[in-house]
Amino acid sequence: MITVLRLNHRAARDKRITTHCALVSRAFGADEMVYTGERDQSLEKSVAGVAANWGGSFCIRHERSWKPELKRKATRVHLTMYGEPLVEVIPKLPKTGDIIIVIGGEKVPWEIYRECDYNVGVGNQPHSEVSSLAVFLHEYFDGKELDREFDGAKLRVKPSPRGKNVEKLGNL
Amino acid sequence: MITVLRLNHRAARDKRITTHCALVSRAFGADEMVYTGERDQSLEKSVAGVAANWGGSFCIRHERSWKPELKRKATRVHLTMYGEPLVEVIPKLPKTGDIIIVIGGEKVPWEIYRECDYNVGVGNQPHSEVSSLAVFLHEYFDGKELDREFDGAKLRVKPSPRGKNVEKLGNL
Repeated sequence: MITVLRLNHRAARDKRITTHCALVSRAFGADEMVYTGERDQSLEKSVAGVAANWGGSFCIRHERSWKPELKRKATRVHLTMYGEPLVEVIPKLPKTGDIIIVIGGEKVPWEIYRECDYNVGVGNQPHSEVSSLAVFLHEYFDGKELDREFDGAKLRVKPSPRGKNVEKLGNL
Repeated sequence: MITVLRLNHRAARDKRITTHCALVSRAFGADEMVYTGERDQSLEKSVAGVAANWGGSFCIRHERSWKPELKRKATRVHLTMYGEPLVEVIPKLPKTGDIIIVIGGEKVPWEIYRECDYNVGVGNQPHSEVSSLAVFLHEYFDGKELDREFDGAKLRVKPSPRGKNVEKLGNL
């Protein structure tokens, strides 16, 4: 089970970034996203809508605090531009068992750096939690996540060199 | 020269996503980002500020239309969830010469699909232009972009397993 833990969502400011984080989580093979900060039902609805149409069992849920989540038995990885190189950490991660991937908002509490098993930099330049998460999962799954089929999809893209080709497999 | 062409920026709605696209462009080895849609000086200022502190020669500029840009002699790649698999396209791309990577806003004109040399799907699930761009560049540069040094940086991260370690190399 791979959980993405998104810290400190602010409904007004972060809606699109957090939505993109959730869609990346799903598309790149995570099982769920837990978020803290403000509860945001429109975020949840929008992510659930994508999952309903495009398949799979990805879900998103809100928690008031990240603390109980990080107490779970799991390998806890915090993505931060200050962390150790991705290529050094990926081989150390277990291929089975639970992984929690923590991605920050603006101010990440110091306890996160301390309590996680790994602080990992997807490079050490400023960019985005969306890209960090995608490249981390892409490396963790060795690119195979992009070929994954999603059970129960109502829509499926047939890859095309020109234009859009979408199969409808169920009622939207 | 690698140019990222971001279509149809809307200053209010897209500011953070476009900023993240620009930071990903820079961090993952592109040379510039051209954007169309609304001119947004706060976007430009924020990206220029990052580039000034963290080094390199990345720049961002606004153009009124994408059309002249796509007429340039370059390999033109459009990132879209409807496109051909990334792993099939990457080996076909030239390792030298100019590449323009087009990333959409909401509604991408049909001419983009037609005029680009490649329409490439970073997977065929909905996720984000931020993640598509990062994974595309990560594959194009074979991961080496994450080790790149940025000339003239005033700040440099020393990767650390715990906490933040930033060297100050110049006046901010």
